[in-house]
Amino acid sequence: MSAKYAIGLDYGTNSVRALIVNTASGAEAGTAVWNYEHGTMGVILARDPHLARQHPADYVKGAEVTIVKALADAKKKVRGFKPEQVVGIGVDTTGSTPLPVDRNGQPLAFSKKFAKNPAAMAWLWKDHTGVAEAAEITELAKKIRPQFLAKCGGTYSSEWFWSKIWHCRRAAPEVFDAAHSWVELADYVPAALTGTEAPDKLTVGICAAGHKAMFNETWGGYPDAEFLSHLDPKLGDLRKRLCARVQSIDTTVGLLTPEWAKKTGLPAGIPVAVGAFDAHLGAVGCGIQPGALVKIIGTSTCDIAVWPNTENLADIPGLCGIVNGSVLPGFFGLEAGQSAVGDIFNWFVNYIKPAGKKAYSHADLDHEAAKLKAGESGLLALDWNNGNRTILVDQRLTGLLAGQTLYTTPPEIYRALVEATAFGALTIINRFEEYGVKIEQVVNCGGIAEKSPFTMQIYADVTGRPMKVSRSAQTCALGSAIAGAVVARAHPNYAAAQKAMTGLRPKIYKPNPQAHEIYKELYVLYRTLHDAFGTREWNGNLFEVMKKLIEIRGKIRK
Amino acid sequence: MSAKYAIGLDYGTNSVRALIVNTASGAEAGTAVWNYEHGTMGVILARDPHLARQHPADYVKGAEVTIVKALADAKKKVRGFKPEQVVGIGVDTTGSTPLPVDRNGQPLAFSKKFAKNPAAMAWLWKDHTGVAEAAEITELAKKIRPQFLAKCGGTYSSEWFWSKIWHCRRAAPEVFDAAHSWVELADYVPAALTGTEAPDKLTVGICAAGHKAMFNETWGGYPDAEFLSHLDPKLGDLRKRLCARVQSIDTTVGLLTPEWAKKTGLPAGIPVAVGAFDAHLGAVGCGIQPGALVKIIGTSTCDIAVWPNTENLADIPGLCGIVNGSVLPGFFGLEAGQSAVGDIFNWFVNYIKPAGKKAYSHADLDHEAAKLKAGESGLLALDWNNGNRTILVDQRLTGLLAGQTLYTTPPEIYRALVEATAFGALTIINRFEEYGVKIEQVVNCGGIAEKSPFTMQIYADVTGRPMKVSRSAQTCALGSAIAGAVVARAHPNYAAAQKAMTGLRPKIYKPNPQAHEIYKELYVLYRTLHDAFGTREWNGNLFEVMKKLIEIRGKIRK
Repeated sequence: MSAKYAIGLDYGTNSVRALIVNTASGAEAGTAVWNYEHGTMGVILARDPHLARQHPADYVKGAEVTIVKALADAKKKVRGFKPEQVVGIGVDTTGSTPLPVDRNGQPLAFSKKFAKNPAAMAWLWKDHTGVAEAAEITELAKKIRPQFLAKCGGTYSSEWFWSKIWHCRRAAPEVFDAAHSWVELADYVPAALTGTEAPDKLTVGICAAGHKAMFNETWGGYPDAEFLSHLDPKLGDLRKRLCARVQSIDTTVGLLTPEWAKKTGLPAGIPVAVGAFDAHLGAVGCGIQPGALVKIIGTSTCDIAVWPNTENLADIPGLCGIVNGSVLPGFFGLEAGQSAVGDIFNWFVNYIKPAGKKAYSHADLDHEAAKLKAGESGLLALDWNNGNRTILVDQRLTGLLAGQTLYTTPPEIYRALVEATAFGALTIINRFEEYGVKIEQVVNCGGIAEKSPFTMQIYADVTGRPMKVSRSAQTCALGSAIAGAVVARAHPNYAAAQKAMTGLRPKIYKPNPQAHEIYKELYVLYRTLHDAFGTREWNGNLFEVMKKLIEIRGKIRK
Repeated sequence: MSAKYAIGLDYGTNSVRALIVNTASGAEAGTAVWNYEHGTMGVILARDPHLARQHPADYVKGAEVTIVKALADAKKKVRGFKPEQVVGIGVDTTGSTPLPVDRNGQPLAFSKKFAKNPAAMAWLWKDHTGVAEAAEITELAKKIRPQFLAKCGGTYSSEWFWSKIWHCRRAAPEVFDAAHSWVELADYVPAALTGTEAPDKLTVGICAAGHKAMFNETWGGYPDAEFLSHLDPKLGDLRKRLCARVQSIDTTVGLLTPEWAKKTGLPAGIPVAVGAFDAHLGAVGCGIQPGALVKIIGTSTCDIAVWPNTENLADIPGLCGIVNGSVLPGFFGLEAGQSAVGDIFNWFVNYIKPAGKKAYSHADLDHEAAKLKAGESGLLALDWNNGNRTILVDQRLTGLLAGQTLYTTPPEIYRALVEATAFGALTIINRFEEYGVKIEQVVNCGGIAEKSPFTMQIYADVTGRPMKVSRSAQTCALGSAIAGAVVARAHPNYAAAQKAMTGLRPKIYKPNPQAHEIYKELYVLYRTLHDAFGTREWNGNLFEVMKKLIEIRGKIRK
């Protein structure tokens, strides 16, 4: 029996990747990356720093180019590999990244009239033009539909579906009026590959709909027309034109068209799975299961857990969403996250550019900071340079560093920043457990998990938990390939597919007990600052914070 | 009538300067600086980072070398200048810098036995070995002599006279027992120049005694023997061996000895004024008068004001001292200060070494930061990298920076640090005024006042007050020369001497009204952080702080 392969397509912020994976072993046969052509590194920007769009033409061209190259790569690397061995395709993307489409489900930006209008393009996840709309949606839901907020952490975000569409309605009414409907990037790509873009053929994913568009079966799908009409009558009208076939990733949206088969060299008619967000399929690629927290650590983090949908689960405040089937079929998918992790380290290295004998690189700072002991610097930071996603759900927060003396060094600050992100990570773990979701293991993936043993060790020391690292360096694309393998029936279900296709690295970072004891003291101080600056409810005094930092510093240095 | 000159001797931390000044015009005829020979840049250090001592031999040699060189310099620069035209000498020094002396008033360190014993040397102002003793003195005074603390801001410092002497008693009892008495450096130098070191001839200054040794005429001079004996019976004994002739700077301690005249080339018999601290005579050199605040801005600041001793004056909490006659005869001298100003900027440039295209210098950062607008960065800092002297009197405080984003730049941080020191300065001005000491003008001197127009402009904008800068670059030495001129009767009194010999630079930094409006908003936030971290009494919530910073930033950037 010849080997079977699945393809995962992973649409990131600046580029798209195709990964070809052996469905029996998870071995990665071939891969290719293509940088989007439009805008600045793939992102269309404007004077308004909140605006971030993408041209959908990049999505279509990116699929073709990367599949062709990945197949060529696999041919080179795997003896006897043939494109015919590819049995299914999965797709993950950034999100919420909705785009307006016409009556045929084609992006408005493909028409001449709108080809250069940013409002007609895809509204990239990090587009924040809908800040005011997000606040109004939250306000209205608080009053008349509190259940909507309970499933998305208590606050509706400017990064999400309805904020963006409503902002388009206000800021670019000609685009809004020209749009028949809106689809998420995660749904558009599978539809395009299978020729199912038209409204009567379209199937969309529960991941995007549930996490970003307030879709929930308990209240009958999308937010009701009354609620939407309260925001704007035209949003109420739009509801009936949104795709109502909402499925989890074990569903086939369609079969690869002959046209796409011809363009790419893949066999026509192979199934394409329902699309999902990168973090969710990344969690699948990390082998997520009940009791595990998967941390996808990059510029920011997504923290994903699952919970059997047959068991009770409380609404957990501060999470980005709790959606039935958004990660694995049969489980609630729980999404949390930190607004910036690697981005904070990048800021320090690239903007502040601290210089020792020469300019410090990340590796230099890792090296120097690793020599320090927990508590030795007397510093304490808040990891809020890009706001706080979980558990405060508040973008109007900023970074903070306390404890500087006249002798504070860059490695000390760098370590404090890494520690701050670890305290943020611990806050998320604690929040899960406070609401009954026991975290029995933590699996990390993403660039920092692989490249910075220092950071992983700090995470272990701060949380007091072993830090495991996913085997694959491309867990999102791997998760998509797993989705492709499942819809192709290469495995009977996700559990079997994950068991066969995912794994961990042998190195596990174990907490150092002495360091953990110090970090327990520092975490109390972190939570004091966190709650003092981050919540309305906190009431108290910070007089002891600097004193305690000095006291701990004195204890360590002695 | 030929011109008259006075000499000011200014003893700093690393060097001593002599300045020869025309008593009629204040014109500076000649000057010379000599770096102390002992220790590291003049400071004897040890493994204990709290320890900082100086060898008194440097004080004696320094006077000789600098006077000789300054006279030579004046001969070169001023046509017809003759040493015989010098009519008087004044002395200012660091402090509290007490040294143990023998029965003849000679420093113990001059004896063979103690020549290399740091405990027998001068205990430099920044020696902090007496931290525990300072706390115990404060504790006892709180219980049984609250009036002692009321005149020195509520807390007795480890930098001061009794903390150091008591620590010597405990840590080096052989030195304490060998010492007949202790004198301040500011008193030792005038005594040495005039041969009046012996207890029966010695006259000391009210400046050091009043500000650092809790000397006050209202309770009969030094702290009573009962109080001191509570600390240690041997401190109680010491009291009667301390010099009781305590005078202000309009008093002559004695006449220059023939020996010193021979060594230096000065005429024998010219009067030497009572010594005082550098900041206090620096204020004199800035032309201090009622209604003026003189800010001596260097690595840290001293803020000096005066108040007629015929009028009522409340005890002002948080000041470093309120002493009758410590600055000008007939006035209370009021001393406040910031623990670090230039030192914070130095930390950022020298330790963090932020790098743009190349490494940033102070001047680069001044230049870049000056281009920014008030409030534009969204940053807010606390100027506590070296603790807080006035108004919190708390060394166990540390620096803080809030408001960082992923795009925060070094010039933005630098500006926030400068602004923080300006907010600290405003807090001091407000404290004076809250207790009835109206500040009608602010006169700045010291390196930063001269070299950083950017900093002076920020100070004007933050305080909403014009910032004036003293004409002389050597205000401390000039103030000492004025003291020399007054005891030589070149002027009938200080007012006349200051009028003739001091002045301001033509450039006055005027507040920009728009910037001041923004800084008024930011100062409210600064005080919130200041009180939250710096006082036990504060009770509240910081939820609005980051929000307001973002709001102000948004307003400016719009």
